Amino acid sequence: MGIDFEPLFSDLAGNMKASEIRELLKLTAKPDIISFAGGLPNPEAFPIEEIREIADEVLTEYGTVALQYGATEGVTQFRDWLKEDYAKEGEFHDGDDLVITNGSQQALDLLGKILLNDGDKVVAEAPTYLGGSNAFMVYGCDIVHVEMDDEGMKIDELEETLRRLNKAGKLPKFLYVIPTFQNPEGVTMPDHRRKQLLEIVYQYDDLLIMEDNPYGRLRFEGEPQHSIKSLDHEGRVLSMKTLSKILVPGFRIGVVTGPEELVQKMIFAKQSADLCSPPFNQFVAWKYMEYGYVEKQIKLICEMYKRKRDLMLKAMDEHMPDGMTWTRPLGGMFLWATIKGGINTDKLFFKALEKNVAFVVGRPFYTDGRGTDSMRLNFSYSEDDIIDEGIERLAATIREELVNHQRKEEYPAHP
Amino acid sequence: MGIDFEPLFSDLAGNMKASEIRELLKLTAKPDIISFAGGLPNPEAFPIEEIREIADEVLTEYGTVALQYGATEGVTQFRDWLKEDYAKEGEFHDGDDLVITNGSQQALDLLGKILLNDGDKVVAEAPTYLGGSNAFMVYGCDIVHVEMDDEGMKIDELEETLRRLNKAGKLPKFLYVIPTFQNPEGVTMPDHRRKQLLEIVYQYDDLLIMEDNPYGRLRFEGEPQHSIKSLDHEGRVLSMKTLSKILVPGFRIGVVTGPEELVQKMIFAKQSADLCSPPFNQFVAWKYMEYGYVEKQIKLICEMYKRKRDLMLKAMDEHMPDGMTWTRPLGGMFLWATIKGGINTDKLFFKALEKNVAFVVGRPFYTDGRGTDSMRLNFSYSEDDIIDEGIERLAATIREELVNHQRKEEYPAHP
Repeated sequence: MGIDFEPLFSDLAGNMKASEIRELLKLTAKPDIISFAGGLPNPEAFPIEEIREIADEVLTEYGTVALQYGATEGVTQFRDWLKEDYAKEGEFHDGDDLVITNGSQQALDLLGKILLNDGDKVVAEAPTYLGGSNAFMVYGCDIVHVEMDDEGMKIDELEETLRRLNKAGKLPKFLYVIPTFQNPEGVTMPDHRRKQLLEIVYQYDDLLIMEDNPYGRLRFEGEPQHSIKSLDHEGRVLSMKTLSKILVPGFRIGVVTGPEELVQKMIFAKQSADLCSPPFNQFVAWKYMEYGYVEKQIKLICEMYKRKRDLMLKAMDEHMPDGMTWTRPLGGMFLWATIKGGINTDKLFFKALEKNVAFVVGRPFYTDGRGTDSMRLNFSYSEDDIIDEGIERLAATIREELVNHQRKEEYPAHP
Repeated sequence: MGIDFEPLFSDLAGNMKASEIRELLKLTAKPDIISFAGGLPNPEAFPIEEIREIADEVLTEYGTVALQYGATEGVTQFRDWLKEDYAKEGEFHDGDDLVITNGSQQALDLLGKILLNDGDKVVAEAPTYLGGSNAFMVYGCDIVHVEMDDEGMKIDELEETLRRLNKAGKLPKFLYVIPTFQNPEGVTMPDHRRKQLLEIVYQYDDLLIMEDNPYGRLRFEGEPQHSIKSLDHEGRVLSMKTLSKILVPGFRIGVVTGPEELVQKMIFAKQSADLCSPPFNQFVAWKYMEYGYVEKQIKLICEMYKRKRDLMLKAMDEHMPDGMTWTRPLGGMFLWATIKGGINTDKLFFKALEKNVAFVVGRPFYTDGRGTDSMRLNFSYSEDDIIDEGIERLAATIREELVNHQRKEEYPAHP
């Protein structure tokens, strides 16, 4: 009697891919495992007492408004505060608009919804944040990857890619970039390259940049770079930020600013997507920013994550075998490691699980099958005192696999 | 220099309609206006003290989990509590699944996304909730309206409509119905018709019912009807509920249960749409339900809304001219009034504004231009002591328009 649902599902449903990472993460939920797999902020840093105090105040002062339906674009006081704050960094201009989303993920989805048709192209870093590429691909687009070096997207390859696509009548709708402490690589694009990126984009009449900037405030050292949005003078850049990493993820607050017409269309799309984001959460976030708690909090998080990054890098230096390379991020939550010598990290993942250590495999960060020689390691979540042990276990797994692999190459079982 | 965004927007963006009601509501934000236009729960009933107490507890007991990213399908403890509660009403069966959404609106959007292709048909009541029809139409579907009487969707017209569509190879993907205290009409479908509805749907192999039930618990009098979901024995019905009307709208919590394969696909779609709904809000909602506060609250709301409905009906009876008819809802937040005699409520709206009273015009609740003789009146939001005055102003406006209209018919200016 059961209904066969498969033929009922839409074309968009057919474009949806299961998150492989999500499935793998389930396997890492064992008691003794040391996991560098997740992408979570460290809950030890959550400002629970400040939230308690503010939540109480919001209920007293704004209860009936904060608990009612709100405007689709977000709570006015919160938006006004953010506009002023963003203007200081050159990120909010006259005519710009601003919308509060359910985390940056909703911004990515709405962008896909309002801009992408089946067969459209989107340029993204190789590797890129898979939550972004997956959200866009639901709407049928193809991701065109552009290689990175230690300064982010390679400019000459980008130039060449755009020229080729444009010639074929397939100019992308936009570039999707995470220029600061990129997910998954952790690298940062310096100002001079951001300017080059803009100049290239300006060569095409209707090309946009989506700047995803979740980790920008988590800088442990080095000079801050300007956001691409603040360097843009043609209204080509839409900026996505989030409070998930500087307040808490559990309030689900993303902030989008960009060309007014684009943001207005996002608000329009959000109206039928969910009417509005929870006003209560926005009121709490507003007061948290207004009272300056956020600055104290960023300082605390940066100290904590820097310590953990240092511990991880030190352990990597000590334990990892030759032929392994990794990034040395100046902020954020991740580093990216690559193994030379033919080891497949999809397989390595299960070997590592046997030794009670986990990472995220590299392949899902590409849409073209690359990345099987790489892995993402998260340093923000683990306790300080298990990082060395975890990296040692991982290094031992890799060393064993390298030996096995070499043996197989020297004495192939089936020549 | 400005970019021309219009050609960049997607086909889906082209399907998005501005909410006319939203635009009209802006006009009603004048100080002296008595507005029956909105669709808001009454904030005087918000359980602010209970929320304060529970928020505090959640931060103490579950802080690090409630403020972290959560599972896409929702907070486990909350989902488990709801499943058990729904099972008591026969609304949760083995193999059913449950997902927490950002209000019912997100459920409507996700359903459209996973089920509807361009040109697909959806059957809905005439009139229907425009947040539903608009969300579906973003995905390119056509709404096929079926007339209602005072027991909801007319069964013979439904039967005939389905037969006709099926013959044309255009069987709808689903029926969208709000069987209890319908928005906008306020009428309720009795059990016997719910069963008839199911029997008709069972005649087609792959036809589903989406049961939107936001007001079900707001019954002021009369016997509760069974939900269509609880009467279904073929797994054809997906049920959408919300905490917006029995807790607060500002937490944005919708609850969907239905055929497992369908709900799983919604969870899948939600993952790329926004990762998860705010866990903090779900924890508060869970405790609010678990402690039984919700039952106390429903009692309080029903008393308040019943009083307001009675005041409105009494005022209607007293002031409205002949030729005007309206529904007498047994619960919910709205009644629906129709004016015989050629008055167009789109025009009447502005005349009423001049007299400082507002309603929602009928047309947006249809997708085919009907409804210009009707209006929706909300009774949940207004203060008790202005309801009579507001209805009196509205009646005066209608009476004037009827006279003007009659005069024009008798002495037409341009024959």
